[in-house]
Amino acid sequence: VIANAAMPGSGRGDPVLYSDFALHLTEKALIARVRRKARNRPPIVAGIGDDCAILRIPQGHEAIVTTDFSLEGVHFRRQWHPAESVGHRCLVRGLSDVAAMGGEPIAAFLSMAVPRKLPQKWVGQFLQGFLKLADRFGVSLAGGDTAESPDGILADIVVVGSCPKGRAIRRSGAIPGDSIYVTGKLGGSEAALQRMFAKPKGRLNHTDFPRHFFPEPRIRAGTILREKRLASAMIDLSDGLSTDLAHICEESGVGAEIDSEKLPRARVGKAKRAVSLNLALHGGEDYELLFTASAHTKIPARLGAVAVTRIGQITARKKIYVVRQGEREELKPQGWEHFR
Amino acid sequence: VIANAAMPGSGRGDPVLYSDFALHLTEKALIARVRRKARNRPPIVAGIGDDCAILRIPQGHEAIVTTDFSLEGVHFRRQWHPAESVGHRCLVRGLSDVAAMGGEPIAAFLSMAVPRKLPQKWVGQFLQGFLKLADRFGVSLAGGDTAESPDGILADIVVVGSCPKGRAIRRSGAIPGDSIYVTGKLGGSEAALQRMFAKPKGRLNHTDFPRHFFPEPRIRAGTILREKRLASAMIDLSDGLSTDLAHICEESGVGAEIDSEKLPRARVGKAKRAVSLNLALHGGEDYELLFTASAHTKIPARLGAVAVTRIGQITARKKIYVVRQGEREELKPQGWEHFR
Repeated sequence: VIANAAMPGSGRGDPVLYSDFALHLTEKALIARVRRKARNRPPIVAGIGDDCAILRIPQGHEAIVTTDFSLEGVHFRRQWHPAESVGHRCLVRGLSDVAAMGGEPIAAFLSMAVPRKLPQKWVGQFLQGFLKLADRFGVSLAGGDTAESPDGILADIVVVGSCPKGRAIRRSGAIPGDSIYVTGKLGGSEAALQRMFAKPKGRLNHTDFPRHFFPEPRIRAGTILREKRLASAMIDLSDGLSTDLAHICEESGVGAEIDSEKLPRARVGKAKRAVSLNLALHGGEDYELLFTASAHTKIPARLGAVAVTRIGQITARKKIYVVRQGEREELKPQGWEHFR
Repeated sequence: VIANAAMPGSGRGDPVLYSDFALHLTEKALIARVRRKARNRPPIVAGIGDDCAILRIPQGHEAIVTTDFSLEGVHFRRQWHPAESVGHRCLVRGLSDVAAMGGEPIAAFLSMAVPRKLPQKWVGQFLQGFLKLADRFGVSLAGGDTAESPDGILADIVVVGSCPKGRAIRRSGAIPGDSIYVTGKLGGSEAALQRMFAKPKGRLNHTDFPRHFFPEPRIRAGTILREKRLASAMIDLSDGLSTDLAHICEESGVGAEIDSEKLPRARVGKAKRAVSLNLALHGGEDYELLFTASAHTKIPARLGAVAVTRIGQITARKKIYVVRQGEREELKPQGWEHFR
């Protein structure tokens, strides 16, 4: 019932984080651990332990807020994804949205419904993956809710961040003539999915597919673009280039032309083979940044730790084309549909 | 994938709000409707339609954030609760947490997973209940996520509000000698539940149990208490008086004594009969405010539209007692455990 109801068991035992249903003892212990780990950092005035969390948004900044589901069978499978990867990916979805505005994350809220018989160890490892990533970006776990799920694990993540007033990089700012860029490499995440679909019982070595199992949110690249006012529009690549580029084009009222030979294709597996053009064009969940910039703007070859590649340009005609071997063909969004 | 992914179908059809899974056509139509209804109001710089929503927190204010699940079978049953009531109650959970800080709500985010075969009409009525309440409190629906649920309806609501810096009313401020107050009447919500459990196939007339089906969040009462600096500690009554008072006592490091004869018991049903003492002490989901104030502070008889009643006092001894017919007995939290 109470979002941030880290309330002391008040006669019923250990401190518990959430009060809105009877918790197992093991869960109580776990949650006490979360509360200890989730100490309030400077911009968090109050985290777990009251009706609401209280956050200080830096002066002259606006608050930015994003929310994303991570559902078993839709966004992950327990037999394919180690719990630590699920926790990491769950938070990345929110951090990547903050990166795509050029913002800085402040706090995360995690609401989670789990089946009664889910092993405690799974939840512990999930939290480990989640909190390790949160720590690296100075993000506090400031609240959430928990419940029992009749079937399957369900997490909803909220990330609150901030951005200097009026400076968030929107999807709607691209104009004809702008160049189109991506950070990192494309298609690496969906390549892992393809392999798992092909061999559903095998376990992939996650170091062969880091962009799938432990993607890095491009927070630093996003803030550099915002601070130096380099980008005219930006989005994160969660649904795949063809779909996410269409979002920018639609919101900006423009079209685009992509040069297939310029696309930075991920290298995956033990052999580090480049993924297919199809995966680079349509593969989802890479969590790279796709942005546009004036043709007159000099974009550095790297933004922080990540390489940047120019892949095409914005056009006035409201269609999206891909040029391959001198031939121009229309690029239809083939948005990633989650596996079931 | 994208929290606020109100993105234009980009070649695939109508504008859709959420891009992270294939939407039914009817759902698309619905979501287009939500987007039309969810126009951005002043403090919302960007709502649905980008990677994050952008909110302006008033100068000199802190952001407050709360998140709450509303799960079918845990917080509501489809055969007992009209969809409009479910939508209303879903949002009230968040608004009531904001009220309990003395805050003012700004924006709501709704993440919802529904079974594929849920009638479209149900979702429409749910949204109607949700948006009608949001409108009345000037709250914008600024984003969310949607997904298909394997079983049962699942909603997660986030409410973001604000409060002048350092002025939020916490759970931890009660001191011995403070008086204890509640707004409104107690036990009315759980009284409805009891009747429904007794006659699971009957439909209650919801005008006989307004506090259960359409509870009013006590935003105005909360802001008056904060503006006039009347309260030392506050919480909303979501789990029931015995449990929520224990939260205040635990966070404040104090105890309490409640006078059973002073408890304002709700009158319910056609006959408007007062609920039992037990329901007033332990019944959940009344969404009234429970607060403490110095014995020297004059508390008005009404706060905005709602009556206020003094029900006891804070003590140094860290136990909670209820006095009934001259006898003092310990009050154990019998927190509301959601029905399943």
